[in-house]
Amino acid sequence: MNEPEEDAAAETATAETAAASPPSGLSRRGLLGLAIGGGVAGLAVGAGAGIAGGVAIGRARAHADAQPVHEFFGEHQAGITTSVQDHLHFASFDMMPRTDRDDLISLLQDWSYAAARMTQGLEVSASGAVGGPAEAPPDDTGEALGLPAAGLTITFGFGPGLFENEDGDRYGIAALRPTGLERLPAFLGDDLNPQASHGDLCVQACADDPQVAVHAIRNLSRIAFGRARLRWSQLGFGKTSRTTSSQATPRNLFGFKDGTANILADDAAALDDHVWVASDDEPAWLAGGSYLVARKIAMLIETWDRVRLAEQDTIIGRDKGEGAPLSGGDEFTAPDFGGASIDANSHVRLAHPEQNEGIRILRRGYNYVDGNNELGRLDAGLFFLSYQRDPGQFITLQRRLSTDLLNEYIRHVGSGIWAVPAGVKPGSYVGAELFA
Amino acid sequence: MNEPEEDAAAETATAETAAASPPSGLSRRGLLGLAIGGGVAGLAVGAGAGIAGGVAIGRARAHADAQPVHEFFGEHQAGITTSVQDHLHFASFDMMPRTDRDDLISLLQDWSYAAARMTQGLEVSASGAVGGPAEAPPDDTGEALGLPAAGLTITFGFGPGLFENEDGDRYGIAALRPTGLERLPAFLGDDLNPQASHGDLCVQACADDPQVAVHAIRNLSRIAFGRARLRWSQLGFGKTSRTTSSQATPRNLFGFKDGTANILADDAAALDDHVWVASDDEPAWLAGGSYLVARKIAMLIETWDRVRLAEQDTIIGRDKGEGAPLSGGDEFTAPDFGGASIDANSHVRLAHPEQNEGIRILRRGYNYVDGNNELGRLDAGLFFLSYQRDPGQFITLQRRLSTDLLNEYIRHVGSGIWAVPAGVKPGSYVGAELFA
Repeated sequence: MNEPEEDAAAETATAETAAASPPSGLSRRGLLGLAIGGGVAGLAVGAGAGIAGGVAIGRARAHADAQPVHEFFGEHQAGITTSVQDHLHFASFDMMPRTDRDDLISLLQDWSYAAARMTQGLEVSASGAVGGPAEAPPDDTGEALGLPAAGLTITFGFGPGLFENEDGDRYGIAALRPTGLERLPAFLGDDLNPQASHGDLCVQACADDPQVAVHAIRNLSRIAFGRARLRWSQLGFGKTSRTTSSQATPRNLFGFKDGTANILADDAAALDDHVWVASDDEPAWLAGGSYLVARKIAMLIETWDRVRLAEQDTIIGRDKGEGAPLSGGDEFTAPDFGGASIDANSHVRLAHPEQNEGIRILRRGYNYVDGNNELGRLDAGLFFLSYQRDPGQFITLQRRLSTDLLNEYIRHVGSGIWAVPAGVKPGSYVGAELFA
Repeated sequence: MNEPEEDAAAETATAETAAASPPSGLSRRGLLGLAIGGGVAGLAVGAGAGIAGGVAIGRARAHADAQPVHEFFGEHQAGITTSVQDHLHFASFDMMPRTDRDDLISLLQDWSYAAARMTQGLEVSASGAVGGPAEAPPDDTGEALGLPAAGLTITFGFGPGLFENEDGDRYGIAALRPTGLERLPAFLGDDLNPQASHGDLCVQACADDPQVAVHAIRNLSRIAFGRARLRWSQLGFGKTSRTTSSQATPRNLFGFKDGTANILADDAAALDDHVWVASDDEPAWLAGGSYLVARKIAMLIETWDRVRLAEQDTIIGRDKGEGAPLSGGDEFTAPDFGGASIDANSHVRLAHPEQNEGIRILRRGYNYVDGNNELGRLDAGLFFLSYQRDPGQFITLQRRLSTDLLNEYIRHVGSGIWAVPAGVKPGSYVGAELFA
């Protein structure tokens, strides 16, 4: 790249390399290498069996006991009720033009195969980063070699455009679109950037090591080559919610505890009521799944930082130090909205189930910092993620927040909604029910 | 913000709040509150004594034993030879127009005071996030409340423009500018973004928790209000270098181990030879300090990922799996450049001290991912940081790399150089020697 002549040579070399070994062949090679069960389902069984059988391939050897390893297969997808990990890499993809139903199915199969391996601390394929032929690009990009699974979960979702968009019913699934799965309505104060919104598919990668989460998204992007393209992605840290009672309540970038009243993983009744799509909900293929809403919420932190402490407390409705409601008690005391101590437009009151006909959602957001803007202000905020049984839960709550005192200090700049299928059965792939 | 009328009201309220309690008053209040030793030096002594005396203020209580706490005061600044932490938030600042010498000195004093506290797991001042008067904005932004020190180090540097720029000798220190402290020369392949380059002052915050590093930069930015403004900042993760022999060699986003031959913290002779400015070097005020070079190196990872494994190994000069030189042995075997096994333009050969008259530098870089570009490619790479006794060391090595085979896959998009003063003496502030 140092001289124009070399630039041209580099382009040529790259094109040749790409033609000789298309990246889309990567995961298929991996699948074929494990094709012991016959047909597509058998391939995934092969992958599952290989992992369960303790095939010592890849990167897990060094620290396998040091950190949690979450099952990829199961009743529900991991990454929803899983104890929230420290880091997030979230990615939204659009299917490429002129792809067909087989392309989509093969992508979901290849993604499932790779995800089933990576979540166990393995490389994306048996040959991985360094085990393949020297004359081919490696299957795995290698930056997670030697790292443990680090609690990695990979959670997939299907956006409204996957079912039908301006090109029509590309994949023969338009009739199966859940009624509620459509772009969220405009809310007061929305200032959405289309480059940070929407998408045909989403992948939520959470891990306790950011390098592991980034490795997952990078390799899934690579596997998608020719079929789907990264639309936008977001890194996050410092989980702002807890999903198990043993986790301390973390703080958001306003300095307040966030997620005190979240739905916890061990509250099966609440999960059934508020998070999981039931078998008698519509559509049937989504039973055991959920709806994921993402909102990128920019915080005007420099403005917030000039607000006096008492006013901050009033806006939130809790005290900053302990997170106790202003009506008294400690962090876990139920707020008393009967008196005057909690402002009618405080965040805690407007968002509280008691003020919203009992509506609850499972929150799983992360803080983000994307550098700074030209004014020298940090480009930072909350990457809000919530799972709910019906998109209407989020819409109702968000409309309720239209008079939130906090709105003066935030801007919603990104938005997306996806149907998250149930967990993957051993021998199958994510979303298989949609194509049955 | 929901209605134009409310927007206008918000602006007014913000302006009033700001006028009533200027953020620049924050740290001065903190300093005054500890003014027990007389004069400015006494203030810093006060801070140091308060910390050493175990004043139980702030956030360190919960987990103080769980993670390392690094001394802020000492012979050298922490964050250079300190065992590399997991996360980086790096920030570059420009002094504001019409600031004078007293503004610069007060900023460095206030920064030193806050850094001495935050690195010990304390809030920026004694009253912190929730201990001040309800009628004032809190001193500390609060998002690190309850978090441990997390190995936080804060390292300060002075850029060429601080000594003299187009406005002249603003602070009366032009004559003290180190001869070698000037913007780096253009290198082949540079494609620098001025918005990610240069700066009057830099702050390197490293910690094992990104929220702690972000909290440090955010609060130092806030303290700088009216005196210096954030010019650019960069988050990084997955340290790509090691500085102690107990650390495993990490991998960069090309999937290769990086930093095998780095200068380690326990190699005092190498540090004296290559990293620390000696007492008989010029200028005298910088003795015990170093020069920091930052280079934001974008990696064309999608292109790299299509290169066959053997070619990747050739380009680097090591094998991807173990990191052993292609001349044989294991990761820590010295490369043998005598034979044909290591390409003459491989990265390892061109960068090796043996090929550069023994020149060595201490590397401390991090991987970064800044989302993705409009083509769906990850905006990712290496945020290279190196410390050296003389800028000429970096310049020589970087020129040597002009024929590096790796250049086809990287672009240098950001650059900066700063003189890093020696460590802060208890009772003083960073860079005090410059104003003596």
